[in-house]
Amino acid sequence: MIRELVEFQSPPGLSSGERFRVIYRLEGSEDEALARARDICLEQTVEFPDDLIPEGFIRDSVLGRIESFGKGAHGSFEAVIGFPVETAAGELTQLLNVVFGNISIKPGIFVQALDLSASLYARFTGPRFGIAGLRRVLGAENRPLLSTALKPMGLTARGLASLAGRFALGGIDLIKDDHGLTDQPFAPFEERVARCAQAVMDANRETGMRCLYAPNVTAPAHLVVARARYAKEAGAGALLVAPGITGPDAMRLLAAENDIGLPILAHPALQGSFVMGGNGISHYCIFGQLARLAGADASIFPNFGGRFSFSRDECGSIARGCREPMGPLAPIFPSPGGGMTLENVPEMREFYGNDVVYLMGGGLFRHSDDLAENCRHFRKLVGG
Amino acid sequence: MIRELVEFQSPPGLSSGERFRVIYRLEGSEDEALARARDICLEQTVEFPDDLIPEGFIRDSVLGRIESFGKGAHGSFEAVIGFPVETAAGELTQLLNVVFGNISIKPGIFVQALDLSASLYARFTGPRFGIAGLRRVLGAENRPLLSTALKPMGLTARGLASLAGRFALGGIDLIKDDHGLTDQPFAPFEERVARCAQAVMDANRETGMRCLYAPNVTAPAHLVVARARYAKEAGAGALLVAPGITGPDAMRLLAAENDIGLPILAHPALQGSFVMGGNGISHYCIFGQLARLAGADASIFPNFGGRFSFSRDECGSIARGCREPMGPLAPIFPSPGGGMTLENVPEMREFYGNDVVYLMGGGLFRHSDDLAENCRHFRKLVGG
Repeated sequence: MIRELVEFQSPPGLSSGERFRVIYRLEGSEDEALARARDICLEQTVEFPDDLIPEGFIRDSVLGRIESFGKGAHGSFEAVIGFPVETAAGELTQLLNVVFGNISIKPGIFVQALDLSASLYARFTGPRFGIAGLRRVLGAENRPLLSTALKPMGLTARGLASLAGRFALGGIDLIKDDHGLTDQPFAPFEERVARCAQAVMDANRETGMRCLYAPNVTAPAHLVVARARYAKEAGAGALLVAPGITGPDAMRLLAAENDIGLPILAHPALQGSFVMGGNGISHYCIFGQLARLAGADASIFPNFGGRFSFSRDECGSIARGCREPMGPLAPIFPSPGGGMTLENVPEMREFYGNDVVYLMGGGLFRHSDDLAENCRHFRKLVGG
Repeated sequence: MIRELVEFQSPPGLSSGERFRVIYRLEGSEDEALARARDICLEQTVEFPDDLIPEGFIRDSVLGRIESFGKGAHGSFEAVIGFPVETAAGELTQLLNVVFGNISIKPGIFVQALDLSASLYARFTGPRFGIAGLRRVLGAENRPLLSTALKPMGLTARGLASLAGRFALGGIDLIKDDHGLTDQPFAPFEERVARCAQAVMDANRETGMRCLYAPNVTAPAHLVVARARYAKEAGAGALLVAPGITGPDAMRLLAAENDIGLPILAHPALQGSFVMGGNGISHYCIFGQLARLAGADASIFPNFGGRFSFSRDECGSIARGCREPMGPLAPIFPSPGGGMTLENVPEMREFYGNDVVYLMGGGLFRHSDDLAENCRHFRKLVGG
């Protein structure tokens, strides 16, 4: 049987020799961690017993390969594994599968970072705007950007549009739908998007600013692109999507479609378990690198000190994943939110610097009864 | 401000009063667990500070509500939370968001089970075939079904087709692509699918059986449906998809499209972290109930005793999630695999009974050098 398999191996010409790298953190003793690294090489490519893999092409040009292995942080081990670029087939979906598909079902394995290769990067559009592009659209040079969310669910489309108008008058840069607003009868998608986009355009005429409304296009698979097109037609200036719900490739598609071409905010819903447990993907990688590879221009995540559990260090690593060099991909905005208040703005200014989108939701309702005035206060606090 | 929000609340006529229920397991002391339950009611619907939520429609008809709270298993607590059916907007994507979107970023919260309501079930096709339908297609009454995978990656399309033919001659019911085969240059999608489908059809003519080939349509967002249509045209009898990679709604769409109409096998890649950590979704729910709601006819998961870490109890709970009554949804096949060998078939027969799809990959290569003969041996062992 093995002999017959050899006969059907792909010809060596099909391998470029190019590999992309994934850095894994592995738990256990040194022997256990090394066994995990070896397992990843098999499980994520051929998924076949080692002793049954024929010599030649498959072993040389399909299997993952341990490029380095050694002690990592906190008593764990770190392995750099190189995968033949052909295994990912130039698809974000299959790349995710090679990086963490089956091993997501095995404990003690954590994806720390991606180090992709040239031909793989070339297959992805990446962020269409990035930090520089979004600043250009907004006419906002070198200052932190301000963002807020339309909520609570249960308001009518008119009510949400009224909020949107006031936020825009108050100087918010990016007004997004709450990520739970999709197509509820309370405020159906088309009516909500049309009214909110109009309210923001009206406010912009008054202020001379270029506030963007980002409707939520997290939607059933056949509707994501259709809703984005409708949103653009209606005058929305950006899009919100939760790649953990739609699948990350739907976000990539939104970024890649030339006839949409709007800045994209990524929302972290349903992705938390990847950073909470006995295996997973690092904050740096999932909310930084992967959001960016999948086309986000800003990556929303729960800020430290709020009602979520991310630490200062974890949030810092997300900001690095958004902004550090990553092949040809533009740097993107980290967008901390979730329980932000006007009180902790000074601490955040120092921590995140200027290339950040602050997302404040409920907190904006607290300063006074005048919402536009609260926004202006937020803006003054943030400065820049 | 709060006064103005009230003015924009949706009218009571927009609420049906119908709620769907989610059973959560909550960690911590009783007070902590109760605080978590209260938090879920807010976080998953209005995502707004409790004290800012106006009385009336939003509080009555949008917020989640604790319907019961008490001690659960192993020192944890259990809460049943009822969510107004309108919050899910009849969308699988938004239903997932209400069930576990933002709280996936909070520790100590586990989705145990869904208890959906009538109008919500009515929005989903669910499994098009289920156990009875798949048995009908295969002409296989009341016996366990046999399944295997085409691999390793790196074989040519001809090589994979040669394997497919031999598996079909040996009496395998369902021959799936390995879930890592997408559109690699080693065996490009269209060539592979055409050759493998043909090989299985040829074998079926010889044996008089009705073996189905299930190509992998886990693909970029704009290609999932297109690849499924191509597969059907080429004569494939089923489809394989990994909802953790494409997003579960892409699988639902495949099941719902009348012009595709093929049985669907769900693969667990990239979903493992949901059952591995400090929060998540139970095995019962994610690999049983959710796979079924999203249209799978068989749900593949790593069997106990193999190279993965699921326990006997966890595998049993998946089988229950596949087969127990769930509104109008047909029961589906649990499909244990991953490190199965011919040796542990007897133990599995006793554990899973007859309504099961056994998935054996590498193990089928071990008995002898004659692959078709190994399949016949597998079939004899399984009996039924």
